Amino acid sequence: MDAALLTPDRAKGDVDALARLAKADMAAVDALIIDRMQSQVPVIPLLAEHIVSAGGKRLRPLITVAAARAAQMKAGDADMAAPLKLAAAVEFIHTATLLHDDVVDGSERRRGKVAAHLIWGSATSVLVGDFLFARAFELMVETGTMRALGILAQASSVIAQGEVLQLTRAHDLNLDQETYLRIVSAKTAELFAAAAEAGAVGAGADEVVVVALRNYGLNLGLAFQLADDALDYGGSSEALGKNAGDDFREGKVTLPLLFAVARTRGREDAFWDRTINKGQRLDDDFRRARELIIGTGAVSATLDAAGAYADAAKAALSVLPKSDWRAALESLADFAVSRAA
Amino acid sequence: MDAALLTPDRAKGDVDALARLAKADMAAVDALIIDRMQSQVPVIPLLAEHIVSAGGKRLRPLITVAAARAAQMKAGDADMAAPLKLAAAVEFIHTATLLHDDVVDGSERRRGKVAAHLIWGSATSVLVGDFLFARAFELMVETGTMRALGILAQASSVIAQGEVLQLTRAHDLNLDQETYLRIVSAKTAELFAAAAEAGAVGAGADEVVVVALRNYGLNLGLAFQLADDALDYGGSSEALGKNAGDDFREGKVTLPLLFAVARTRGREDAFWDRTINKGQRLDDDFRRARELIIGTGAVSATLDAAGAYADAAKAALSVLPKSDWRAALESLADFAVSRAA
Repeated sequence: MDAALLTPDRAKGDVDALARLAKADMAAVDALIIDRMQSQVPVIPLLAEHIVSAGGKRLRPLITVAAARAAQMKAGDADMAAPLKLAAAVEFIHTATLLHDDVVDGSERRRGKVAAHLIWGSATSVLVGDFLFARAFELMVETGTMRALGILAQASSVIAQGEVLQLTRAHDLNLDQETYLRIVSAKTAELFAAAAEAGAVGAGADEVVVVALRNYGLNLGLAFQLADDALDYGGSSEALGKNAGDDFREGKVTLPLLFAVARTRGREDAFWDRTINKGQRLDDDFRRARELIIGTGAVSATLDAAGAYADAAKAALSVLPKSDWRAALESLADFAVSRAA
Repeated sequence: MDAALLTPDRAKGDVDALARLAKADMAAVDALIIDRMQSQVPVIPLLAEHIVSAGGKRLRPLITVAAARAAQMKAGDADMAAPLKLAAAVEFIHTATLLHDDVVDGSERRRGKVAAHLIWGSATSVLVGDFLFARAFELMVETGTMRALGILAQASSVIAQGEVLQLTRAHDLNLDQETYLRIVSAKTAELFAAAAEAGAVGAGADEVVVVALRNYGLNLGLAFQLADDALDYGGSSEALGKNAGDDFREGKVTLPLLFAVARTRGREDAFWDRTINKGQRLDDDFRRARELIIGTGAVSATLDAAGAYADAAKAALSVLPKSDWRAALESLADFAVSRAA
């Protein structure tokens, strides 16, 4: 993507500072994940390992760990027992939704590998998703923190509702921006918010810190999702971790598309109606959609919106004591948007 | 089925005594179910209502309510607040597994209606199942009873494992009886056990009563499932609530089949190998399978096994104080088997 599309004074940020700080904690989370995905039914750990070990950045459990550390600062290992289990539970919930999503969308790839349902079948993918979801709750019960359980149970029901809403509205050009943001908040940002909030609660943080970290997570999740949406038209496949153009090829309505449709009203209506509403897409259509979306400034406007959410995420942290953890969380918010540059 | 196949002194039992006693409690559970399946995403309550209102006997939440009542006897309404929520949660978990099962098995009917996935699609069925599962945990969190949460979280992971095990082994004539009972314990009896145990825990019962009620539920669940398996060959479709012969037509290995295969070894191996292992079933094969299964006494032997579990269920209740509730639970155990006569 053209770097000039980015507001020039946007900070770069990175995820590495946080990953370095959290290295020992995340090793403990990984050990928990491996331990709790075991089962005497042989196919379960096989399938679970396929998707869990592909792993990605483990962003959500990383946020739970960082929230707990940033909230209590001088935590000894004993104080991290609950947050570490909650972090593993967050990753299990996320993995369960990925397994179900891939069945629902018929996706062929996930985390750079063949999607699990294409290897073991949709039935097994659905049931192993259920298993991981149940295991997430078993882990939470072990922490004895009812409030954290409530946070993640509610997040799970919000996510499922967001998925259904997306399923019924995703190919609808009449989707308004408010409904689009409602979908994104529910299906993506809610788990970031719950991951941060649960980490704070698990660490026994003060109420003002709990609220701040939930707020941070919600805005961070929105920033990540909007930057992803922009990358799908403006970025390279490497930066995205999936193929650029997938959203368009699936006829999925996202914010850059909505901006471009509004900005080309009266002259490109037939193109959008054919490719999105009617789902009749030709080989060359993505190139044209990309031109329209970048040319009308829709990618840039989406990144501006993402940047505003990243700023809100950083601002939410101001009530926390200054620490390396807080700085790393701030840098992560910048990274959410700058990786799309 | 020929009544002579039943051991003559087996008690009849019924479910009506329990349903009458629990009428007011179950009305409260139903109100909770309706309230908590609501969502601002319109298709969710529609689909949920389709399967929830078909309802059946609501056997599992009935057991939760009855366990709580039998455990505390003189319970005023206030004491039932937690058990009623746990009962609604149990029904949500059960409904979620039914939605996912029907997608997994490609079943066409459920509770006398067209299966939800044939109306709203598999994707929506999977996601609404996830939603109901999450809502179950939200309800449990409201009770503040961490132990009940742990019981139902563990049951959920056991059920999912049982489903996967069945998926990989259900059409395998080499399935041994032990593995068959492991599947049935996990995918059916575990939720009966957890429903009863959670009810007792929610009512604040003594440990000896909690253990007794879990034991009752587990044995009751096994009795119900084995009687269902027998009915599929020996009963009428009305008694079964689904079509007799479905298990055979799906090539599903159950206890009566395993008994008959063992008892016809050396003379019917080719028939079983073709119809079950190879899955090549002709129109007239069910008639022949039914003759072999009844003729070798396999239905009767399965009902004897079911009867033994029903007796164990009743025996488990002996540590509870005598009450109308205890008597109704005993009668339910007899009913589990006698309805197959």
